[in-house]
Amino acid sequence: MPDAPFRRLALIGIGLIGSSLARAAKEKGGIADEVVATARSAATRDTVRRLGIVDRVEDTAAAAVAGADCVMLCAPVGAFADIAAAIAPHLARDAVLTDVGSTKGSVIRDVGPYVPDHAHFVPGHPIAGTEHSGPEAGFATLFEGRYAILTPPPGTDEAAVAKVATLWRNAGSMVEIMEPQHHDKVFAIVSHLPHLIAFTICGTADDLEEESRQAVLRFAASGFRDFTRIAASDPEMWRDVFLNNREALLEMAQRFTEDMTAMARAVRWGDASYIEDKIARGRRIRRRLIELRQA
Amino acid sequence: MPDAPFRRLALIGIGLIGSSLARAAKEKGGIADEVVATARSAATRDTVRRLGIVDRVEDTAAAAVAGADCVMLCAPVGAFADIAAAIAPHLARDAVLTDVGSTKGSVIRDVGPYVPDHAHFVPGHPIAGTEHSGPEAGFATLFEGRYAILTPPPGTDEAAVAKVATLWRNAGSMVEIMEPQHHDKVFAIVSHLPHLIAFTICGTADDLEEESRQAVLRFAASGFRDFTRIAASDPEMWRDVFLNNREALLEMAQRFTEDMTAMARAVRWGDASYIEDKIARGRRIRRRLIELRQA
Ligand SMILES: NC(=O)c1ccc[n+]([C@@H]2O[C@H](COP(=O)([O-])OP(=O)(O)OC[C@H]3O[C@@H](n4cnc5c(N)ncnc54)[C@H](OP(=O)(O)O)[C@@H]3O)[C@@H](O)[C@H]2O)c1
Ligand SMILES: NC(=O)c1ccc[n+]([C@@H]2O[C@H](COP(=O)([O-])OP(=O)(O)OC[C@H]3O[C@@H](n4cnc5c(N)ncnc54)[C@H](OP(=O)(O)O)[C@@H]3O)[C@@H](O)[C@H]2O)c1
Repeated sequence: MPDAPFRRLALIGIGLIGSSLARAAKEKGGIADEVVATARSAATRDTVRRLGIVDRVEDTAAAAVAGADCVMLCAPVGAFADIAAAIAPHLARDAVLTDVGSTKGSVIRDVGPYVPDHAHFVPGHPIAGTEHSGPEAGFATLFEGRYAILTPPPGTDEAAVAKVATLWRNAGSMVEIMEPQHHDKVFAIVSHLPHLIAFTICGTADDLEEESRQAVLRFAASGFRDFTRIAASDPEMWRDVFLNNREALLEMAQRFTEDMTAMARAVRWGDASYIEDKIARGRRIRRRLIELRQA
Repeated sequence: MPDAPFRRLALIGIGLIGSSLARAAKEKGGIADEVVATARSAATRDTVRRLGIVDRVEDTAAAAVAGADCVMLCAPVGAFADIAAAIAPHLARDAVLTDVGSTKGSVIRDVGPYVPDHAHFVPGHPIAGTEHSGPEAGFATLFEGRYAILTPPPGTDEAAVAKVATLWRNAGSMVEIMEPQHHDKVFAIVSHLPHLIAFTICGTADDLEEESRQAVLRFAASGFRDFTRIAASDPEMWRDVFLNNREALLEMAQRFTEDMTAMARAVRWGDASYIEDKIARGRRIRRRLIELRQA
């Protein structure tokens, strides 16, 4: 097992992402010598104890962070401000505070002000996940071959950034440094807007009268099904993502809606070449993804 | 091998769908004793000859239909009117004319008027496909466990309908009879609108400035990728589908755009419970698909 960059890692929230990292720490090593966790509900804390995937489960975030040299927020991003307020007084000297939240501007806004001078704040986002949630859904290989993005504010201690990068590399990820604004814009289009669309079209289908709704379920394989897979994700997590990447998401949703309107207009007026051009662009992007082995 | 309902099947157009049926006829049987095919281009006709998946390749549709007791249109639906005009004078007595087009109202509109009194018209749509096209993309098992929908106009010869149904059952499909209008509405939401959205969002991403576009390709796994898969399909086929299910597609696109606007508004104004409700509906639909084993 590779040397771990941290002695004790505290996971605040331990669902799909947190439990996958805990499992990686045990099975692959190179993450932290000891892993402590807490979750909001007693039920989840009991599940985690039963699963035996961490060394210790604490009832409060304050207790979990005591003595930890790395604290990782693994709850929905909407909970980060309250969690930061609760843990700030208990952070050890030179502790590294990081997170796995899907939005980065909001995390810097919500958590940054609470970080004491004696700690280091390294926001992060592992680009890995499934449509399942909770600690039983996690697995040790989730981060293998996937990107992990870090968005450290200017002036962040370089040693702290390097340690968080080592943690993710040892979990199997490729680490990238990005500006938080660029991160939020890119993920608005590659992830947040597709999820918003998927949830929306499920609602559109659900509003049809009964007979059509039955047929939708029956013939879903024709394309709709691919949208429902990504619409199966956790409501609380996605609500928080949408509300915490509001500006970039609304900007992309606006562009998309304009493009949908133009496409519908081309269908209405029989503008075949406009439609063909859009379809051809879709294929081109698909081909590039295949070339880049991201398909 | 089961008894075949037809002696000679003529495929007009032989890409993904036509070549899959030709392969099923050879490998599974129960389709037709002999399969003849034609395609628009000499290149495709040569490919089909080389593949050896049909008994005979003809250079014209008129030659292909001569002596066939079943003629199946397997070209993009926009070509159907011209094809129908070209083959009508050559259709044998009691020949069954069917098709695999993804739209049904337009096929009845475009083909119906050309069908001579001595032939039988049984419009059809196998609910099977991949994002690949052309005769090399086909495979004999494509239709197994999938639905095949027939939309015979009132008064269609029942023996003709039964024979087409037998053909699809022997290819491995479950046969359903539907009203063409209901078919077009259901497929507008389960298939045509998802494809329209997928093509559109690829265009939206492709319009971003260079730096973001690179990042989109890199981080596509986060959701965008699922949309590009369905956007990889044949431009000509989809252009024709959109233009030939115009009314139902525009109606569904309009409902969807309204729902997107409402969702964007909820994001803008922080209406958490509206967003959660929509997400929960998406999950519910996903769960029902899993129960119905359609996920
Ligand atoms: N899933 C993905 O695809 C993905 C990918 C990359 C990043 N992320 C990010 O990773 C984070 C976690 O996502 P996940 O998929 O692991 O979610 P999850 O499976 O739903 O788990 C969330 C965890 O956070 C806990 N939690 C919720 N509110 C809390 C609070 N106020 N205080 C302490 N703990 C709290 C939950 O405890 P209870 O069970 O007791 O509620 C649970 O342990 C989110 O910020 C998300 O944006 C997710
Ligand atoms: N792909 C799917 O997912 C799917 C599913 C269900 C139904 N369908 C329907 O099935 C039909 C065929 O789709 P496909 O995926 O098999 O398409 P494809 O792979 O692109 O093949 C189309 C075939 O039609 C031929 N063709 C085109 N224009 C023609 C014309 N004017 N006269 C004669 N032949 C012509 C093409 O010949 P060239 O190669 O020479 O151009 C080719 O052989 C379409 O109506 C589509 O709506 C498709």
